[in-house]
Amino acid sequence: MDNKAETDLTDAQSAPPAATDLVAALQAVLPPHCILFREEDTRPFECDGLSLYRALPAVVCLPETEAQIQAVMRICRKLNAPVVPRGAGTGLSGGAMPHPQGVLLGLSKLNRIKRIDRDSATAVVEPGVRNLAISEAAAPYGLYYAPDPSSQIACSIGGNVAENSGGVRCMKYGLTVHNILRVRVVTIDGDIVELGSEAPDAPGLDLLAVFIGSEGMLGVVTEITVKLLPKPACAQVLLASFNSAEAAGHAVTRIIGAGIIPAGLEMMDRQAIHMVEPFVQAGYDMDAQAILLCESDGTREEVDHEVERMEAVLGAAGATRLQVSTSEPERLRFWAGRKNAFPAAGRVSPDYYCMDGTIPRRHLARVLTAIEQMEDEFGLRCANVFHAGDGNLHPLILFDSNKPEETERADKFGVAILELCVQVGGTVTGEHGVGMEKINQMCVQFSREELDTFLAVKRAFDPRCLLNPQKVIPTLARCAEYGKMHVHGGELRFPDLSRF
Amino acid sequence: MDNKAETDLTDAQSAPPAATDLVAALQAVLPPHCILFREEDTRPFECDGLSLYRALPAVVCLPETEAQIQAVMRICRKLNAPVVPRGAGTGLSGGAMPHPQGVLLGLSKLNRIKRIDRDSATAVVEPGVRNLAISEAAAPYGLYYAPDPSSQIACSIGGNVAENSGGVRCMKYGLTVHNILRVRVVTIDGDIVELGSEAPDAPGLDLLAVFIGSEGMLGVVTEITVKLLPKPACAQVLLASFNSAEAAGHAVTRIIGAGIIPAGLEMMDRQAIHMVEPFVQAGYDMDAQAILLCESDGTREEVDHEVERMEAVLGAAGATRLQVSTSEPERLRFWAGRKNAFPAAGRVSPDYYCMDGTIPRRHLARVLTAIEQMEDEFGLRCANVFHAGDGNLHPLILFDSNKPEETERADKFGVAILELCVQVGGTVTGEHGVGMEKINQMCVQFSREELDTFLAVKRAFDPRCLLNPQKVIPTLARCAEYGKMHVHGGELRFPDLSRF
Repeated sequence: MDNKAETDLTDAQSAPPAATDLVAALQAVLPPHCILFREEDTRPFECDGLSLYRALPAVVCLPETEAQIQAVMRICRKLNAPVVPRGAGTGLSGGAMPHPQGVLLGLSKLNRIKRIDRDSATAVVEPGVRNLAISEAAAPYGLYYAPDPSSQIACSIGGNVAENSGGVRCMKYGLTVHNILRVRVVTIDGDIVELGSEAPDAPGLDLLAVFIGSEGMLGVVTEITVKLLPKPACAQVLLASFNSAEAAGHAVTRIIGAGIIPAGLEMMDRQAIHMVEPFVQAGYDMDAQAILLCESDGTREEVDHEVERMEAVLGAAGATRLQVSTSEPERLRFWAGRKNAFPAAGRVSPDYYCMDGTIPRRHLARVLTAIEQMEDEFGLRCANVFHAGDGNLHPLILFDSNKPEETERADKFGVAILELCVQVGGTVTGEHGVGMEKINQMCVQFSREELDTFLAVKRAFDPRCLLNPQKVIPTLARCAEYGKMHVHGGELRFPDLSRF
Repeated sequence: MDNKAETDLTDAQSAPPAATDLVAALQAVLPPHCILFREEDTRPFECDGLSLYRALPAVVCLPETEAQIQAVMRICRKLNAPVVPRGAGTGLSGGAMPHPQGVLLGLSKLNRIKRIDRDSATAVVEPGVRNLAISEAAAPYGLYYAPDPSSQIACSIGGNVAENSGGVRCMKYGLTVHNILRVRVVTIDGDIVELGSEAPDAPGLDLLAVFIGSEGMLGVVTEITVKLLPKPACAQVLLASFNSAEAAGHAVTRIIGAGIIPAGLEMMDRQAIHMVEPFVQAGYDMDAQAILLCESDGTREEVDHEVERMEAVLGAAGATRLQVSTSEPERLRFWAGRKNAFPAAGRVSPDYYCMDGTIPRRHLARVLTAIEQMEDEFGLRCANVFHAGDGNLHPLILFDSNKPEETERADKFGVAILELCVQVGGTVTGEHGVGMEKINQMCVQFSREELDTFLAVKRAFDPRCLLNPQKVIPTLARCAEYGKMHVHGGELRFPDLSRF
């Protein structure tokens, strides 16, 4: 930042600054086209992919360089202004919802792929680069970036780092945290720190892992070194039908138990199949109560061998029909059904609410049965489409928001699912983040001591809690108000769900 | 803890307590056989596997329950007494060296395997359980625990968590951090927090990852949920000879580049081969300048296919001789050479100093050449035996400690190697930890802002820095005294090593 800007800064104060003061301070360090503060300009930034939560920011900054980000952070620190970082705005938990008195810091202009290194199979990229763009740039070298959230055409790698995004492939190839080697970060003080390294492991505390998935609460990432993988020579998908979701759940456990790690292991229940098939014509078995999609990738020989083993395990687990893709177009068609499940839900129901709980795999069958019972209880349909191999559920609760009473039931249904996940030893979110949406459920997931530990680590990076405030970590007051208690160690954590 | 003990505690004070006060307070909460304070009893705890650093603790506590650990922690917090946790004492960086005014907290009595769950392929164990004992207990279910540090017969899983231990298999199966799902921790306040979960990912900050490898600085682990893997049906090892260490280094890059992830990829240079072969008769090629050991595991078909691919790649990379193990005894014999390299060094040299730097794999050849040049410069021999696939070097510097001047040269040689590792983008320690040994090199590895971030996170868990104090994170004063500067971003971080 230039010296003029530094001397223009007023002293620290305890309340957030007036919007005009904030804008004036920012105008001293950013070119005019990088600052938006008129309502018609800030309106497009009022929410992310979860449009339920909206707010207009005091100002939107769209910096073009790391030095500009440092300057913005120093101003915010000095003026006590909240900072909400934003990637491509595709997040599903309100993590990028603006603070009305703060800066919405958009990173879309930092979108260069700086280096692709074929020998070390790494790429150095800026945070605004789209997930899929990395794989496209690496393709000439026979490499790709593995994590594939369903928004991968649009979402940015910086957002993936903030949310620790997953995807279909993450069972075999890991989450974002397993595919990032190093990040360069601007702290709230405007300092630069680098976390992680290109070499395996790193001395000292593993702050790279704590940064990945920190939902914009610890710092702003300006450069990312990602791992690239050799593109598998071929891939095939196996479609297996089952007479019950329970049987499909058990089949998942048996595949993993056989030591097979598929490159994708997805489940769709009857509701989801009937929602998707008329829309996509993927070739799904309309008579099945549940289907599994099991992908194998590798060399020709590896795929042949693995597909054969999966057929044997699925057959023994009671599959009523088995289809193996015989060509690349057929493989893509089989996947098209899964990948279009969300739009398909929009076709059969005015609204849907997508949950993101995870559970230990061994409880898959039990939890699916419980969700079925909840459909009756809440009087709403729920389609299940999810990363079965990871135990990462995406129940889609179908409802009509024009009927307020139905919205309320959908909300309660969602909460009941998430709390059931916690009850069986799972979590309230797998890959979509906590953000605004699941902050109450964090009271159920964690004890007060655990939330205090989160908060202490948050403060280690950001003592005044200016970075993405009032998200992710609930206060004691909020948990008291929510009125749900966390109890460690017992099998049943909330008696009211003990019937499932 | 009982109420009597609580009321017996004196107020907090700023200096550590007198040993007699500390012992008296501990006697109120621990049975007599769990406290050692006479010199003859505490002497066996004066050092870990790095005997260069020694100190007698004020008192040794060997608790038998989590509640006793909570009581000890509350006393230490109240009396301001340092606490140094200790597993099996096999660490190689002085991480468990006692504090002379503090408690050495030995966890060896917490050694129960609480549960092995075949379906979820997990085990719940106490920290004092030996690494190998987990695999032995899981064997009847066809499962095992993957990380295999060379001390695995003796080292404890709690120590593995503290050091984020690796081993030969960690290239394919990950470090400790990739094989632990959950830990239960007693904080310095005596509270219980659980980090991680059995379900994939976890909401909020990834404090499990930051805890693993934190070298006893954040809390004391009392229960660990580990991932188990299905035992591979078979394994074979391929031995490849090369005309130069450089050629072997390039071959490693080509194997990874071909998308093969061996279950072990180790390198030994000529010095190491000639040290080991007369001792072990492993069948190594005495004419080679370097050999690679490449392990394949999986089903019969997978292993056949992978060995064939590795033979092709290694042949194309200039291997002068290729041998594939044809039986399990032969496979074990091939590995026996690698696994006995350290004892073999003891046979040919009065002393050896084992380093643990990591480097990006693409710099293997360059760094090995530089180490060869350093042998001339420092007038000492160095044998290289290491996890080539991970870029984790274990140079063994051979010297005679009876010649003080030689010890000094060995020390300088070691420092030069570590700083070269940092220069090429690597780290000063892969799997042995920082502890006491590499604290100066942390000044070279990290910037002041980065070390401050470590310290802030450390304080988030332990505000008064009572847990394993004066280790791992160097103070500003120490770095100033060491006189080495860290400079980010440039290719050459210290001009004095630019000649390599």
